[in-house]
Amino acid sequence: MLRSQRRDPNRLLPAQSGARDIARALYERVATRPIISPHGHVPAQLLAANSSFGNPAKLFVTDDHYITRILHSAGVPLEVLGVGTSAEADPRTVWQELARHWYRFAGTASGYWLEEALDTVFGIQDELTVETADDIYDTLVEHLAHPDNRPLTLLDRFGIEFLATTDDPLDDLSHHRHLAKTHPSTRVAPTFRPDRYLNSTLTTFAVDVHRLLAATGQPATFAGYLHALQERREYFVAHGAVSTDHGVEEPYTVDLDAAEAEHIFASLLRGTSTDAQRRAFSGHMLLQMARMSVDDGLVMTIHAGVLRNHNTATTKRFGPDTGHDIPVPTTFTRGLRPLLERYGLEPGLHVVLFAVDETTYSRELAPLAGFYPSVYVGAPWWFLDAPDAIARFRSAVTETAGFYRTSGFIDDTRAFLSIPARHDTARRADAGFLARLVTEGRITLAAAERIADDLVSTIPKEVFKL
Amino acid sequence: MLRSQRRDPNRLLPAQSGARDIARALYERVATRPIISPHGHVPAQLLAANSSFGNPAKLFVTDDHYITRILHSAGVPLEVLGVGTSAEADPRTVWQELARHWYRFAGTASGYWLEEALDTVFGIQDELTVETADDIYDTLVEHLAHPDNRPLTLLDRFGIEFLATTDDPLDDLSHHRHLAKTHPSTRVAPTFRPDRYLNSTLTTFAVDVHRLLAATGQPATFAGYLHALQERREYFVAHGAVSTDHGVEEPYTVDLDAAEAEHIFASLLRGTSTDAQRRAFSGHMLLQMARMSVDDGLVMTIHAGVLRNHNTATTKRFGPDTGHDIPVPTTFTRGLRPLLERYGLEPGLHVVLFAVDETTYSRELAPLAGFYPSVYVGAPWWFLDAPDAIARFRSAVTETAGFYRTSGFIDDTRAFLSIPARHDTARRADAGFLARLVTEGRITLAAAERIADDLVSTIPKEVFKL
Amino acid sequence: MLRSQRRDPNRLLPAQSGARDIARALYERVATRPIISPHGHVPAQLLAANSSFGNPAKLFVTDDHYITRILHSAGVPLEVLGVGTSAEADPRTVWQELARHWYRFAGTASGYWLEEALDTVFGIQDELTVETADDIYDTLVEHLAHPDNRPLTLLDRFGIEFLATTDDPLDDLSHHRHLAKTHPSTRVAPTFRPDRYLNSTLTTFAVDVHRLLAATGQPATFAGYLHALQERREYFVAHGAVSTDHGVEEPYTVDLDAAEAEHIFASLLRGTSTDAQRRAFSGHMLLQMARMSVDDGLVMTIHAGVLRNHNTATTKRFGPDTGHDIPVPTTFTRGLRPLLERYGLEPGLHVVLFAVDETTYSRELAPLAGFYPSVYVGAPWWFLDAPDAIARFRSAVTETAGFYRTSGFIDDTRAFLSIPARHDTARRADAGFLARLVTEGRITLAAAERIADDLVSTIPKEVFKL
Repeated sequence: MLRSQRRDPNRLLPAQSGARDIARALYERVATRPIISPHGHVPAQLLAANSSFGNPAKLFVTDDHYITRILHSAGVPLEVLGVGTSAEADPRTVWQELARHWYRFAGTASGYWLEEALDTVFGIQDELTVETADDIYDTLVEHLAHPDNRPLTLLDRFGIEFLATTDDPLDDLSHHRHLAKTHPSTRVAPTFRPDRYLNSTLTTFAVDVHRLLAATGQPATFAGYLHALQERREYFVAHGAVSTDHGVEEPYTVDLDAAEAEHIFASLLRGTSTDAQRRAFSGHMLLQMARMSVDDGLVMTIHAGVLRNHNTATTKRFGPDTGHDIPVPTTFTRGLRPLLERYGLEPGLHVVLFAVDETTYSRELAPLAGFYPSVYVGAPWWFLDAPDAIARFRSAVTETAGFYRTSGFIDDTRAFLSIPARHDTARRADAGFLARLVTEGRITLAAAERIADDLVSTIPKEVFKL
Repeated sequence: MLRSQRRDPNRLLPAQSGARDIARALYERVATRPIISPHGHVPAQLLAANSSFGNPAKLFVTDDHYITRILHSAGVPLEVLGVGTSAEADPRTVWQELARHWYRFAGTASGYWLEEALDTVFGIQDELTVETADDIYDTLVEHLAHPDNRPLTLLDRFGIEFLATTDDPLDDLSHHRHLAKTHPSTRVAPTFRPDRYLNSTLTTFAVDVHRLLAATGQPATFAGYLHALQERREYFVAHGAVSTDHGVEEPYTVDLDAAEAEHIFASLLRGTSTDAQRRAFSGHMLLQMARMSVDDGLVMTIHAGVLRNHNTATTKRFGPDTGHDIPVPTTFTRGLRPLLERYGLEPGLHVVLFAVDETTYSRELAPLAGFYPSVYVGAPWWFLDAPDAIARFRSAVTETAGFYRTSGFIDDTRAFLSIPARHDTARRADAGFLARLVTEGRITLAAAERIADDLVSTIPKEVFKL
Repeated sequence: MLRSQRRDPNRLLPAQSGARDIARALYERVATRPIISPHGHVPAQLLAANSSFGNPAKLFVTDDHYITRILHSAGVPLEVLGVGTSAEADPRTVWQELARHWYRFAGTASGYWLEEALDTVFGIQDELTVETADDIYDTLVEHLAHPDNRPLTLLDRFGIEFLATTDDPLDDLSHHRHLAKTHPSTRVAPTFRPDRYLNSTLTTFAVDVHRLLAATGQPATFAGYLHALQERREYFVAHGAVSTDHGVEEPYTVDLDAAEAEHIFASLLRGTSTDAQRRAFSGHMLLQMARMSVDDGLVMTIHAGVLRNHNTATTKRFGPDTGHDIPVPTTFTRGLRPLLERYGLEPGLHVVLFAVDETTYSRELAPLAGFYPSVYVGAPWWFLDAPDAIARFRSAVTETAGFYRTSGFIDDTRAFLSIPARHDTARRADAGFLARLVTEGRITLAAAERIADDLVSTIPKEVFKL
């Protein structure tokens, strides 16, 4: 993994000297270990094409909704930032907007990652201000044009050993095939993300299901639909997939009998379903995914508790993923019970639960993962994969479930250049937490060393069956 | 702002020396800066009258329900403390009760503020015990009688530049007019608090609405009612108001069409409304308030999630605000969506969201304020404006939304003499948080200095349009 | 209380030297003070029989569902651990399983307690590994066979002054009578735990109620049922009970009139009740328990918010208390209101509220206990009685309610040998919290000393009326 030669080498570590020295030593053990990224959103196409990245504004601002949302909250219209428009915004203007509002990012994870990326990838350490913006922009243009900074070269420089993408079940995965042949040093694995074919509350559901059935030559019956999903899962497995991914507003499951499921399925396709039926069907399909995972071995990851596209006007004009997906109160204990009653003790099943509602950490996720061999507590995700939030996560989870029932870090990002920064943040935060346990006499230094090592290799490899 | 010469100058700052030195320097920058108090409950009448404060027992105990609730929980009947009774309790007895139970306040915010007030305002540093109580009481009586300790003199000594009161929409605001003329060094602004005229679940609703309509000469129609509210808002704006304040048990909004609103309004006045109608009407009026704020520019503050008057017998006997308003689980994401769908992107709208359910900080408030330019995360409020709670707030909010989407501190207090102590607490807590970010290499010292400054001036001025 | 001569004497205390020294001094004041254990699950029979403990595997693994659940989550079948089977598992195999997975307990409370118990009770400090497991096992066998390590001798060595058990209302309490005569140095008090006779959602409810009525000779009417409960409470009081204990999934209460209660009671016995009736009845009986507590003085403890027996298959095969009781979101404010409206101001009533949903600490429990003289905030419980969780608890509760509205530590354990370790953990954690308040200038050292003392004696004695 890349390292800055100039930034504070103790950044993110505990300030107190005893803990800091231990944390530093633990961090040093793992700082340059290969990156395992078992869940993220880098497009396989970006890697397969291996073109130069676009201009810095598009790369670091327009395409990163972590950044654009804060600029938007500061009053900068999304169109000025080039979001979701066919006409490209003037990149220097976009970059200047970022510079003008850069002080607002102080203390944010997004701000920290961007500084880290500029520094560790391109050696840029000047503070971004209205005055320095143009020079930094020019330097970045130069770097980005250089062949050394194309995606595949960076993949190696970043030391990324495994990278999961997130893909539509009907994707032909040709980019993954291409990468497997041309760039064997990194395993780039697809992830089966069937939300649009399972979530019957979406208005597009019937159309998407028909497309799925047509592509797989299955009849428009519930059995045909299940076969279609199964077939596409097999296709993904054959292309190296290790997991499925499920983004749900509510982690709700229900075990319907076949006749009931068939009946609702027909209503859905006819457009005569009720709210209750749609909720039940989506909940039942999450349970069906667990059943299929028992069969085909794919790890099931559930990302729960986010209301997508909070502002309709913005969605209509700029599309999804434009910064207004907002978490809601989340609970797993009752909602996942039908799934866990049915499959929770199945050998080999792995279900990784990710939450954006921190209250679930100590209340539900640690207790569930501390009993069910199939359940793992997903690492802090989305708004929570930041230093303080990681510390709160470890504090909330460890006393009940230890370290070995957690998933290892996932970066969950589209922002390829921020991957090393995000993993480095997690490694530092975990080193700091472990160091505190050592200084408080709760674990030995030897145990801390083993855990630090395992968190970046053994644990994610076990959880994601690598 | 007042400063103690004798108390530990590093109080509330981090204990670890590196962080403490930075925190101390950050705190010193802002320690004596003017106080901006954009939300509180000091009566304008108290300032306009500018009489001596009453006896110490009434001032520090009877009238402060933060104090009386803890004494009550210790078994002291409220009548012994003189709460809500026409017959005044013996002040020395009240003061002795406080002294007898003073050890129970150790570690509480209320206890800390009272010690701070006695020290910084009156130089009293003796510990309050049954033995010292009488002497302290006598000293206080002497101080309070002195002209230097009248409200307006203290207003200047406290360095209060801006003070918002909270007022009934039908208040004639004569005290504010008087203060504007006679005490121009502090801007004392009214705040439009229309709860009783909007919350149709209150049994007094119809009576209050009729009073509002009569006062404004409007007909008993929904349109007349809206005009009445609008007219009173204009009156407040003309008297220097900058914000409206809304205390709601549930932050729920709904966008009714005009006919439906008119229909429910009629039912409400006839007394034939249903529970569902009352909930819808109150939710719709919150949305109407946002519409009016778009027009007249008043900042909208929403204080959500408290069940008022938990104990009916106590309310009947002693009145409201007697210490048993208890928070409930709160969520904003879905409930505020109709309001934000309709007005959330309107230029100039400011909606400040205050919560007593901490779970909303990282889950909802920071994500909402990190997208909507109209939404600000309200500072820790009520039970949460204390050192540890402020640290948790900053930790929960900053990584997602930074500092510039938060409101700046509000003291929210009736206890005039505690205002400097409360702001000082926030300044120390924020300095400590910033110092930690500096020692952890997450922000530069220069950034921390700018933020420390902005938190006490630029930010509240921007949020509250001062 | 027992103390290790070899483990880090500063374990669990703050690492920062200033705070650590103060914490150490505070801890030293109370380290060897007698243990008051006002709520736990050690069987009176175990003490009365005073036999040698069984083999180490049964004692430390099979019988401790804190330990077996983590082994189960690691893939070890419960039958291999001897859980819930008549056929005993091979103890050496069980012990080896523990050793093989011991690294997974790093950072957990269970792991910490087990190490503490092995060390402080038996002087065993070797790390548990596959290699050392047999030797440690042999050493333990030897120790456990020694008369000095029988339950009653340990009760004295542990310095347990008061120990509450948890008992069925129909228990004849003969073991308690026996212990009162034969072992007067410890007061072993029964606790009245009537869940099965109150919770009408249980399928066994009618059968259990008939058993209760038969045992007390009461008629099958609601009045008879109330008399039966009252009579058994009196029996418990006569045998030294100080409290009742109520484990509820939802802290819900409702004040039914007598006719309605009688009507539902009849439906329940006839088996014709509805879901709504069962919920109402259970809620009403919690309120009735408060009424009886006003009369007979028993402290009422409510342990709320756990869904028991999450996995039905495991329950059927291995019984309850096998590691899959999982918390759910909990709220007290509205649910307890009917009880507190009716009895919350009654002199002498003590209601101690325990939660596993940490969000209730600052949001509800501290505000409730900061007003109602009858309400105490229960100490961190179940998954939360661990160092970090205790620190979060104190941070969340203290600023609103101080220390004197909390219950003092309860160990809530079946694992007799872990009692000193658990109390020691709480004493260290509280000392650390107090030390932080001192170093931050928030309380004086003298106040911290008084509080440290009171937390282990005055406070639990007051709350539990000892």
